[in-house]
Amino acid sequence: MISVILIGAGNVASHLYRAFLNAESVVVKQWYNRSFEAIKSYKNDTEVINDLSQLKEADVYIMAVSDDAVASLSKTLPFTNRFVVHTSGSVSLHDLDKKNTRGVFYPLQSFSKEAEMDFSNVPICIETEEKTKLQMLKDLAEAIDSKPYKISTEQRQTLHLSAVFVNNFSNQMYRIAHEISDAKHINFDILKPLILETANKVQEMSPYMSQTGPAKRNDKKTLKRHIKLLENEEHRDIYELLTQSIQKTHGIKYKFNSKKKN
Amino acid sequence: MISVILIGAGNVASHLYRAFLNAESVVVKQWYNRSFEAIKSYKNDTEVINDLSQLKEADVYIMAVSDDAVASLSKTLPFTNRFVVHTSGSVSLHDLDKKNTRGVFYPLQSFSKEAEMDFSNVPICIETEEKTKLQMLKDLAEAIDSKPYKISTEQRQTLHLSAVFVNNFSNQMYRIAHEISDAKHINFDILKPLILETANKVQEMSPYMSQTGPAKRNDKKTLKRHIKLLENEEHRDIYELLTQSIQKTHGIKYKFNSKKKN
Repeated sequence: MISVILIGAGNVASHLYRAFLNAESVVVKQWYNRSFEAIKSYKNDTEVINDLSQLKEADVYIMAVSDDAVASLSKTLPFTNRFVVHTSGSVSLHDLDKKNTRGVFYPLQSFSKEAEMDFSNVPICIETEEKTKLQMLKDLAEAIDSKPYKISTEQRQTLHLSAVFVNNFSNQMYRIAHEISDAKHINFDILKPLILETANKVQEMSPYMSQTGPAKRNDKKTLKRHIKLLENEEHRDIYELLTQSIQKTHGIKYKFNSKKKN
Repeated sequence: MISVILIGAGNVASHLYRAFLNAESVVVKQWYNRSFEAIKSYKNDTEVINDLSQLKEADVYIMAVSDDAVASLSKTLPFTNRFVVHTSGSVSLHDLDKKNTRGVFYPLQSFSKEAEMDFSNVPICIETEEKTKLQMLKDLAEAIDSKPYKISTEQRQTLHLSAVFVNNFSNQMYRIAHEISDAKHINFDILKPLILETANKVQEMSPYMSQTGPAKRNDKKTLKRHIKLLENEEHRDIYELLTQSIQKTHGIKYKFNSKKKN
């Protein structure tokens, strides 16, 4: 049995709390949050506190707080030589105060407050200062059906950056498509299967292999017509830059001859 | 029963052929292709030909050929006043020779030759010159479990453009993430669940609502660190442009203060 004390009450903390509650080999001994309001409804399932001095002993303290709060909050923990981890993709292990044994337990997924999170779809990147602690974090990930990956701080920061590309930037591609199609009164539902298929394809095949479309084919007529169709200058800039990026990836060179429309 | 004659043997034609073969209310009367080689293995299931003069009568002729071939090939068809449709997202209905009754049957999906295509995930955008023909294309789409959408030529061209954003450009985001993570010896598998989740999220929620991340939060520290982490200038340009795009969408203004690294 791994005893956990959870610190923080944001999206990651809340999802981890619910997952730990369902895990047979994990017990959440306490849940701390600065504001009592966010966690008080859980007081029948676990001990909820808003005073750091009340923190008990546990196998691991999981600080699921905002990036900026990690360093300062870890300094104010009223104990030493215990095992403290944070859950951030971008904060260094060394930002945690060195009075405790440090680690990272970073779930790489997009968390929203509402939707229930199935942790079997959440890879967890783990890192520990002391090798002996690695197994505990692996067990903790596996207890909630996650797949643990041992990752260095540098790798984790690169993963976090990569996640911006596959998550935030892909989502912005969907957003622009939504804007463009809305303007012509087209039901966005028509595009949803293609969005899913595009994501599905790279589960089996590399993104390099799965690329298609006018940029990859260097279909100049279509590239020109698309640029003409785009009424928003920012959308045109994105179309050109990403077309060039695809062509560079696939060893093709096409030059858009007009930066400005009309 | 709808009788179909299929013209062409590319990805779209091949997938349509297999779907029609399984549809109870559709019969593929003939399959034409310029080169006999590509279709001759189907000669036990349907009449395969490579000579346009052998074309028989059918309810609808489906020209699933490359965009550039639509106009010229439609001119060489040795009959008039029959119903001829193309399957292109970007070619106008009026590019078909007007000696026949014209239509469009455009499946909006990413087709690869290998994978079997489940047409229940393929919206089909239909357009007809004569209103009376609309129902036949609807029936044809529904016969292969597709959802038909009545779409104008202008809407279809905008959809085709939107598809480039959600498919080709999203895929390039995956590709860049693959490059970045490969360079640090990170297993790309770690990012796959996030790719799927991002696509899944917008099936229920608008891309506007589902956006997260440092650009949306205007997390300046992370934005700066990410730019520093990116070693490739093109990747930095894309990061900056798409961050700005997200921030514009969400009414935030952040200025990257260094275009060039070092």
